[in-house]
Amino acid sequence: MRNETYRLVKTERLARLPDMTPPSPAAGRAPDRSRQNPRSRQAIFDAALRLVGELGYEKLTIEAIAARAGVGKQTIYRWWPSKAAVLLDAFTAVTERPGNQGGLADTGDLEADLKAVLRATVDEFNDPAFEAPYRALAIAGAGDAALAADFVTRLSEPGMRAYLERLRRARAAGEIDRDVDLRIATEMILSPFAQRWLTRNGELSHEFTDRLVEHALRGLRPR
Amino acid sequence: MRNETYRLVKTERLARLPDMTPPSPAAGRAPDRSRQNPRSRQAIFDAALRLVGELGYEKLTIEAIAARAGVGKQTIYRWWPSKAAVLLDAFTAVTERPGNQGGLADTGDLEADLKAVLRATVDEFNDPAFEAPYRALAIAGAGDAALAADFVTRLSEPGMRAYLERLRRARAAGEIDRDVDLRIATEMILSPFAQRWLTRNGELSHEFTDRLVEHALRGLRPR
Repeated sequence: MRNETYRLVKTERLARLPDMTPPSPAAGRAPDRSRQNPRSRQAIFDAALRLVGELGYEKLTIEAIAARAGVGKQTIYRWWPSKAAVLLDAFTAVTERPGNQGGLADTGDLEADLKAVLRATVDEFNDPAFEAPYRALAIAGAGDAALAADFVTRLSEPGMRAYLERLRRARAAGEIDRDVDLRIATEMILSPFAQRWLTRNGELSHEFTDRLVEHALRGLRPR
Repeated sequence: MRNETYRLVKTERLARLPDMTPPSPAAGRAPDRSRQNPRSRQAIFDAALRLVGELGYEKLTIEAIAARAGVGKQTIYRWWPSKAAVLLDAFTAVTERPGNQGGLADTGDLEADLKAVLRATVDEFNDPAFEAPYRALAIAGAGDAALAADFVTRLSEPGMRAYLERLRRARAAGEIDRDVDLRIATEMILSPFAQRWLTRNGELSHEFTDRLVEHALRGLRPR
């Protein structure tokens, strides 16, 4: 069920947050993507994701992506100004696969919905094909403020917005207290997961995310 | 009030967690530290922390540390097997300064104590002299599982333990529900801070940490 995963980075098409809108490096440089060859585009994305996982972000080059994808490097430079732009588009393309759009599921049971999406996210982050490139990009972002801003705007904020929207609906349904700051609540759910993953200071399991959801919801419910 | 900071990395002398005990790279190699020249040792630590902030972990070398500290590189190799060992000892030395030991303050008011320690931590992480080397080490750990294990054991776990102990005392005093998992609770308090810092996806301010403490405590109190 590949379409059911990529939860932290999905819903790319949601609007950007107004306070976080640095332009994408690719903005204004690749105006007519309809002229791209879809097969080359996919080969470039696949090569970029695999290579960054193998080499790390520092050692990744446009030349290496071109060679792995079997295209000329000018083909890449024509559409993307940098390796960061290629990678961010490659991750975004994953999130825009059919069935991977829209927000979090809303079955009317907030606890069940959060547990389900976080279990899927655990599986995703335990999959090296996803984990290695995502880790390489996270490390690169931690050391490079400009890349971090793009990473936040295009990948992590849309993912957080999906949670925020789900919590907003739960608040409207009376499942969450009106005094709760939903942004803080979202971070209390997602950040312990992200920290365990990035710093390896604890197990990433369904049991962990289930307990995390239960503990976060204790504090969110109306008193 | 320099002694009042370094909160996330303090209490190094607390026992290690039993499930996380990889040996330090320096273990067994530098048996008689009393023979070290304290002035050289401090110069080596200062040089290591400054240089890793300037160069990043990858480009840091023992030779560069020796040159900056004004000692021969054999002086360093005599006591430490690697640059990671030097850096971890340098951070540990900071946490062992007089006045910087022991756990979190316990005034009997959990909310006030957590807010105070997290405000001090915000100040610390907004100080480039601390932030740059700590970020370099975090990035290196994210990309290197062996270094991460050492980083977790010697720096992040002792810091988390100080919070755990404070929460344990609060539970004994009836401020926290007996059903709460204190490890998860600690992560819900510390991880949103650490994620904002590392990924730069939100402001690191006293206002943020105050709200974070208030939201976390909503869920911990007895019902």
